[in-house]
Amino acid sequence: MKRTDLALEIRESFQENVEVEGVILREKNQEEKGIKVSTVIIKNEHGSKAMGKPIGTYITIEAPKLDQEDENYHEPLTKEVAAYLEDLTGGLYGRKVLVAGLGNREITPDALGPQVIDNLLVTRHLKQEFGKEFLEKHRFGDISAIAPGVMAQTGMEVREILSGIIEETKPDLLIVIDALAARSVNRLNTTIQITDTGISPGSGVGNNRNAINKESLGIDVIALGVPTVVDADTIVEDRVEAILKEQGFSQQEIQSFLYGLKEVSMKTMFVTPKNVDEAIKRISYTISEALNRGLSKSLSN
Amino acid sequence: MKRTDLALEIRESFQENVEVEGVILREKNQEEKGIKVSTVIIKNEHGSKAMGKPIGTYITIEAPKLDQEDENYHEPLTKEVAAYLEDLTGGLYGRKVLVAGLGNREITPDALGPQVIDNLLVTRHLKQEFGKEFLEKHRFGDISAIAPGVMAQTGMEVREILSGIIEETKPDLLIVIDALAARSVNRLNTTIQITDTGISPGSGVGNNRNAINKESLGIDVIALGVPTVVDADTIVEDRVEAILKEQGFSQQEIQSFLYGLKEVSMKTMFVTPKNVDEAIKRISYTISEALNRGLSKSLSN
Amino acid sequence: MKRTDLALEIRESFQENVEVEGVILREKNQEEKGIKVSTVIIKNEHGSKAMGKPIGTYITIEAPKLDQEDENYHEPLTKEVAAYLEDLTGGLYGRKVLVAGLGNREITPDALGPQVIDNLLVTRHLKQEFGKEFLEKHRFGDISAIAPGVMAQTGMEVREILSGIIEETKPDLLIVIDALAARSVNRLNTTIQITDTGISPGSGVGNNRNAINKESLGIDVIALGVPTVVDADTIVEDRVEAILKEQGFSQQEIQSFLYGLKEVSMKTMFVTPKNVDEAIKRISYTISEALNRGLSKSLSN
Amino acid sequence: MKRTDLALEIRESFQENVEVEGVILREKNQEEKGIKVSTVIIKNEHGSKAMGKPIGTYITIEAPKLDQEDENYHEPLTKEVAAYLEDLTGGLYGRKVLVAGLGNREITPDALGPQVIDNLLVTRHLKQEFGKEFLEKHRFGDISAIAPGVMAQTGMEVREILSGIIEETKPDLLIVIDALAARSVNRLNTTIQITDTGISPGSGVGNNRNAINKESLGIDVIALGVPTVVDADTIVEDRVEAILKEQGFSQQEIQSFLYGLKEVSMKTMFVTPKNVDEAIKRISYTISEALNRGLSKSLSN
Repeated sequence: MKRTDLALEIRESFQENVEVEGVILREKNQEEKGIKVSTVIIKNEHGSKAMGKPIGTYITIEAPKLDQEDENYHEPLTKEVAAYLEDLTGGLYGRKVLVAGLGNREITPDALGPQVIDNLLVTRHLKQEFGKEFLEKHRFGDISAIAPGVMAQTGMEVREILSGIIEETKPDLLIVIDALAARSVNRLNTTIQITDTGISPGSGVGNNRNAINKESLGIDVIALGVPTVVDADTIVEDRVEAILKEQGFSQQEIQSFLYGLKEVSMKTMFVTPKNVDEAIKRISYTISEALNRGLSKSLSN
Repeated sequence: MKRTDLALEIRESFQENVEVEGVILREKNQEEKGIKVSTVIIKNEHGSKAMGKPIGTYITIEAPKLDQEDENYHEPLTKEVAAYLEDLTGGLYGRKVLVAGLGNREITPDALGPQVIDNLLVTRHLKQEFGKEFLEKHRFGDISAIAPGVMAQTGMEVREILSGIIEETKPDLLIVIDALAARSVNRLNTTIQITDTGISPGSGVGNNRNAINKESLGIDVIALGVPTVVDADTIVEDRVEAILKEQGFSQQEIQSFLYGLKEVSMKTMFVTPKNVDEAIKRISYTISEALNRGLSKSLSN
Repeated sequence: MKRTDLALEIRESFQENVEVEGVILREKNQEEKGIKVSTVIIKNEHGSKAMGKPIGTYITIEAPKLDQEDENYHEPLTKEVAAYLEDLTGGLYGRKVLVAGLGNREITPDALGPQVIDNLLVTRHLKQEFGKEFLEKHRFGDISAIAPGVMAQTGMEVREILSGIIEETKPDLLIVIDALAARSVNRLNTTIQITDTGISPGSGVGNNRNAINKESLGIDVIALGVPTVVDADTIVEDRVEAILKEQGFSQQEIQSFLYGLKEVSMKTMFVTPKNVDEAIKRISYTISEALNRGLSKSLSN
Repeated sequence: MKRTDLALEIRESFQENVEVEGVILREKNQEEKGIKVSTVIIKNEHGSKAMGKPIGTYITIEAPKLDQEDENYHEPLTKEVAAYLEDLTGGLYGRKVLVAGLGNREITPDALGPQVIDNLLVTRHLKQEFGKEFLEKHRFGDISAIAPGVMAQTGMEVREILSGIIEETKPDLLIVIDALAARSVNRLNTTIQITDTGISPGSGVGNNRNAINKESLGIDVIALGVPTVVDADTIVEDRVEAILKEQGFSQQEIQSFLYGLKEVSMKTMFVTPKNVDEAIKRISYTISEALNRGLSKSLSN
């Protein structure tokens, strides 16, 4: 299986019009807003195994202009993202929420999470200082935030850092923001995935002590991600496969070609758009606005 | 008392040649290295009250060229800093150390701590991956690191974040790096204070649940700081006081003048050198090199 | 005379209600917009000598919330700034304009000019590519821009760089953006000065081959600046002088005190607000929006 | 022809062991230094046409560890780069040199040029201030520098900006630093090309008024570049071509496949290594050190 963090891309990799038991796909084209929303629901172990992803709901918002400067596009988009977050959590306002911006601030396509944290309205300390009434009066949520860095910077698993902070500060919902990998370049910086399954490094299923989810942390976990890179190997494989299929080669021949490709792997290379610095800035702002809107009622009208 | 984080400056504010009970001052001029090292030891409650600082040891390294590009100056300086860290802790190598870079990365004079973390050799995850033998073979310490941000960014007390992480990852020594305030502009970016008392916001003495020290965190805490700003009010007061003294005014007259000054406070203003961006970069590199040298034996020869 | 780049502050340093021959001061309080606009006109050599500034018009917009995030304040402010630019130049649209963002991008309070350039709508190359009609159709101005750096970075006078570029690309108006020094901390990041005299390093009058003005460059020059720093010495002197006056000291005694102060000069120190990184970002955005609005008609409604 | 800025890659695209008239290739393996140096000399119009590059000398230094932190590797490498610059120019010290760092500072893989300028020792203003003797005494070169930005930022051709500055400040040698595109990912951040032909946008041959070379600027021009990106399309094409060749397909079949690929072009996508931010920082420092060493004799021993 080629590397993608998007449940929608995995679902698309199955043959068309074939039902996969335990996997439901719903699509909703919101043309007036310029977005398309697909929901993949993995209902049981069979679906989880087929998809290589944990049981849960995966909402994918395809927003082709997500990486572009256009206030008229982003304004309604923040409302949609806030609404889907609201749906998936069964209500945000009034909960004690910790937002974690994962990723390495020094690597541009990985800096999405930390940049979202930079723009977030954080209020938990105001409650400590002025009392719960203060938050209620201003209709603020109870929000804390952290950009924990990556293991190469901290020497610690992100799960360890979050677990410690959660133990100490007792939020009841964790929202993790992360940059994802996609398989198709068309998805780069134009797609938002929201899921209630958290983040599972590696295979994504089975026992994983460094997963960031309800099982490992003891509280609800929502993961919101945007694909910002495609592995260079993946892109080559996909193109070669597509063109060979089109040329009528057999599946076996194609596999043999792809096998040859693997021997010249570009392991540390990724594909990213030329405007990635600007795009990440734009997208992180939109996501933090969506969170601000969803978490505090004062901002949502 | 004017605002300073340097024990040495507080000690200097007392009348010269007057012994303060419970406070010991030792000075050592290392001319060949271009530094001067003063050690203030607060021995008991009386000294603590007089100084407004917790009982413990405060080592101040005055290094006039700390903010300048001069490899020949910084190389021996990192050795000195590592040696004083070694002394104060009774040995660094072999301990499980968490280094915390306090401060706001987005405000230049406050970014010292986070920038030190950026340059630090972090190894704890290598132990998890390759075993304790790997660290021993390379004579690496067991080092983790975090830049927790400030309360306005996270909604959490730094003490809460560190406490949670310590609970989860079990280091036995915490080293906190922080930008300090001084009273004299001459001390800016030219002074390093190392203390075994940790950090005590506010008055610095008495019960303080947000202190970052052994009492609040349960493990040894070393604080290493560099003054990067002087309050604008402080500088004006100091100059006015000095000149009025020189002009023969009585202490009462001087107090009355200073009182007048307070009415035109420049609360949010600070004094900083023109080269602060470059200076912080230079200093943070030297401190992280000192830590790398002290924490891992592979680098110290 | 204490160091300030603001004509208004120099005018204020004269005794109140005293007319200075050749210097006119007009004030206009635009309370509904939360700004106050003062215009100093230096009419002749006598005024120029008295003020230590070249003959010309100096518009000072005092905008107390200039450094704060408040779209409702900044939106009308950009219109005002654009209008004053329009007045002073006798019309912007249709002219070939070069905008130069002076200052050192690496020193936060000096980065205003380069940051304005980062946000500017630049169009001259579109004319080269698509023809003059393209600009007219979209009602774009003919705008080029440069952030030339400072002499310590380039080894060249800013005047040399701009002169060469002007010779080659033939704009008919130069707008220079620069960070200024003020005398009062209240003016920091809350004041915009616009003048048709350009920039005159040093004394500001007389023959100065490195001035950036019509005489040295051969085209109209408008300078727009915002004070972002106060010299630390200046602030101490001003406070001391004020308090001593209030205490009834004679002018001679005061001079003697100030003389004492000069001996402990903090030459390389400046005073700046704690939020300077954020403030510069906010202000540079507002100025670039004002320029975009003034230079291109498509954006002004 | 696939897109590459490296003369060596173009030369390699010809059939092996086939002499191209007018093109000379010399190789020198400096194993002890861990580098390989290839020199392509285009001697005449025929060679220029075959290569699609102007007549001149192209030195390519392949340095596999160029993007890695290893002082023991970079120290001798700066000497080599300085030596090749010395060879190609027939002597650097004593000449009036303008160094131009091309590229967009805000796009990481394009920021190489501006970052080199940030680290450069600039001295021309010292001559203006302290006299020619000062430079001679310290054995400094006469060095000025500019990071002119890109057309989308300035509205001006780089050639226009440089031409104006050269006209005004009269250097006798221009060295331009630029990020390049390569065809092979192995060349990314591991290769330095130095040429006396300057930079020719587009086809690289024939009349080009925006070329940056002796013809357009009137002074000697050396271009030093490092490939930091590969076009995503290029990489896919190369891989597909290689695998199809290996599988025994005819040239015609291969062409047909490649044609299919072109229809799904990823125009704005590039391939870059995951550590690009860090790599550019490291490489730009090495290049500026090489320039400092070559341009000023005080630093070369």
